[in-house]
Amino acid sequence: MLIVQKYGGTSVANIERIKAVAERVSKTAKEGNKVVVVVSAMAGETDKLIGLAHQVCSDPPEREMDLLLSSGERVTAALTAMALYGLGHKAIALTGRQMGIITDAVHTKARIEKIIATRAVKALEEGYIVVVAGFQGITEDEDVTTLGRGGSDLTAVAIAAALNADLCEIYTDVDGVFTADPNIAPNARKLEKISYEEMLELASLGAKVLQTRSVEFAMKYNVPVVVRSSFNWNPGTLVTKEDKDMEKVVVSGIAHDKNQAKITILKVPDRPGIAAKLFKAVADANIVVDMIVQNISSDGKATDISFTVPKTDAKKALELTEKISKELGAEGVLLNEDIAKISIVGVGMRTHSGVAAQMFEALANHGINIMAISTSEIKISCLINAKYTELAIRVLHDTFKLGEQ
Amino acid sequence: MLIVQKYGGTSVANIERIKAVAERVSKTAKEGNKVVVVVSAMAGETDKLIGLAHQVCSDPPEREMDLLLSSGERVTAALTAMALYGLGHKAIALTGRQMGIITDAVHTKARIEKIIATRAVKALEEGYIVVVAGFQGITEDEDVTTLGRGGSDLTAVAIAAALNADLCEIYTDVDGVFTADPNIAPNARKLEKISYEEMLELASLGAKVLQTRSVEFAMKYNVPVVVRSSFNWNPGTLVTKEDKDMEKVVVSGIAHDKNQAKITILKVPDRPGIAAKLFKAVADANIVVDMIVQNISSDGKATDISFTVPKTDAKKALELTEKISKELGAEGVLLNEDIAKISIVGVGMRTHSGVAAQMFEALANHGINIMAISTSEIKISCLINAKYTELAIRVLHDTFKLGEQ
Repeated sequence: MLIVQKYGGTSVANIERIKAVAERVSKTAKEGNKVVVVVSAMAGETDKLIGLAHQVCSDPPEREMDLLLSSGERVTAALTAMALYGLGHKAIALTGRQMGIITDAVHTKARIEKIIATRAVKALEEGYIVVVAGFQGITEDEDVTTLGRGGSDLTAVAIAAALNADLCEIYTDVDGVFTADPNIAPNARKLEKISYEEMLELASLGAKVLQTRSVEFAMKYNVPVVVRSSFNWNPGTLVTKEDKDMEKVVVSGIAHDKNQAKITILKVPDRPGIAAKLFKAVADANIVVDMIVQNISSDGKATDISFTVPKTDAKKALELTEKISKELGAEGVLLNEDIAKISIVGVGMRTHSGVAAQMFEALANHGINIMAISTSEIKISCLINAKYTELAIRVLHDTFKLGEQ
Repeated sequence: MLIVQKYGGTSVANIERIKAVAERVSKTAKEGNKVVVVVSAMAGETDKLIGLAHQVCSDPPEREMDLLLSSGERVTAALTAMALYGLGHKAIALTGRQMGIITDAVHTKARIEKIIATRAVKALEEGYIVVVAGFQGITEDEDVTTLGRGGSDLTAVAIAAALNADLCEIYTDVDGVFTADPNIAPNARKLEKISYEEMLELASLGAKVLQTRSVEFAMKYNVPVVVRSSFNWNPGTLVTKEDKDMEKVVVSGIAHDKNQAKITILKVPDRPGIAAKLFKAVADANIVVDMIVQNISSDGKATDISFTVPKTDAKKALELTEKISKELGAEGVLLNEDIAKISIVGVGMRTHSGVAAQMFEALANHGINIMAISTSEIKISCLINAKYTELAIRVLHDTFKLGEQ
């Protein structure tokens, strides 16, 4: 088999961990597999570098930021290859460039355009374990780029797709994908299997175990992905194509996201084109709007519009909305950062009715008010007061019997 | 003017220092100069990375070592470019590869083969300050290489040669080139000017202010080099072509080197080819032999041979010599690590006679025994007991009146 293994920051946090990773890779190779290893920067390293950058420059240029940040993964890749060499393996460390990861030129969040894996293929044929610095690529102009937070997941999945690997293992510090955050729902259960679609929703909705874009990529190229822990030998969760078994389960998991803020623009005149004007301005500022609620105006004259944005963009969005509010003659603007989004996800929802009602009822029974709702074919999200987050997760976990096998 | 400035590890040791360097570069640019800045890794960073490598692998592969070590300079280059950007300049950070520094494939001590400076030239024309990660290059096969200890000096001088720069400034933590180590000879004087030949001897003989190969390179391409401090505005020392003034001075400076060890092979049969056999074996082990002394045998039957090697190679050389000693039927082998090499250097020696005698007499007058002597046209080196190092330096400094202008 050809296996791509990705080890995140906590898995390579220090010399002991890097040696442990090398042992695990060694075992996989000794079992007769060809192995490509993708590594993140040692835990904390990227944040340290970002901190240094902001100390020398309040608004560091993104091209230089990418050059700076890419160094962390290079260090880990070199050290991991050395550790494998120390265990008697032939191992070669490749940078994003040497791995042939060509991206667009959108620095700090570049997209992979293609992978020219000639060198890696040759090295694998020659019996080398290939260790790749994750999170980075190179533009056609040979500038270093990075792929954004969680980018090493994407590196691994994209390499697995390019090499037509049999398996892509994402090693992290948790045992796999859980029905809910086990720190909040004590009877949360690790899933054996989950569909790409469900994983994509969970990742988008706040589950941090896999980067959203890497799930999209795995789905597009049909790469079997296993999420598992590098700290034990438990089997992990397989992310794969939807199958019959999965459809029997109505709800597979619960996600929550506390990193959103709600902005409400009060008593805005109820005229066509108002919402368009507002959200065009927000989009032009590169702020991603998640949920939108527009109340029906009681008198046909004025209405309230609420929307959520990432907390990091809340200030910018608030300033923008206040400006537009004046132009539109609205009464005012409110910001609420004490909110949380609770979501239930499951491919079974496609064939089961009444799931939404069940969710709303369960929350209502515990006095949890719903501020906004958004749905898709396989998920339902509710915006609630942040203080009810843990309660809502436990209530829904029980309601949909997620703790039971 | 086009000026290349190189800042060493202590000059960019932390954020405050990097900001100070940016201010200095900014000043140079504002005076109307085009500037290329070459930076080392932050002080201690390279040693830290070497330490990590040896923790994961007792004998790390050199290709991966280079990938590892090259990351330190990339960090400093990115941060320095950011700091310049913060001061309102257009600045771009280039890696060794982006600077077009092509080297041979001798990892950890690669030699620069050529510099394809297209990108840097274009950036300079567009008004950018170009910040280059020192110490590194890339092979024709696109593998990262490093240039060995002090390699950033070489990066700077080679770029200055390639761009036909008007000046190459090497910024360090001392004010320039001194007549002797000021920590040892309190009246040591900073030289205003020194010839390439003298600087080359001093660097080879243990003065650490400039890397030997960078001086060779500067001499070959006639690059004017100034060594000065980044911690003050003192003018530094100009390293340049020999001129009439320099020839008037007999001795320009004193160097000392405590990093050598002496190996003596006792009572080796006095036959032709013995020395050849010994030194071929040592050379084959990649150990550089510096001084060699062969005593004249009193009886024509056996002789003692002494030679010096770098202390780091002493153990390896000793084992090798012991093996050969047995094969040759010698009496035994001695190792002496308590030695020092004291050298006086000056282009004036070419036209002044009696300098050697003056040196030997001065040492003898203070009871300092000379174990070996080696000379060139512009230098005389004596091997002495290490405990006399400081005394010898002060005695010679006074004898040749180096403290006087």
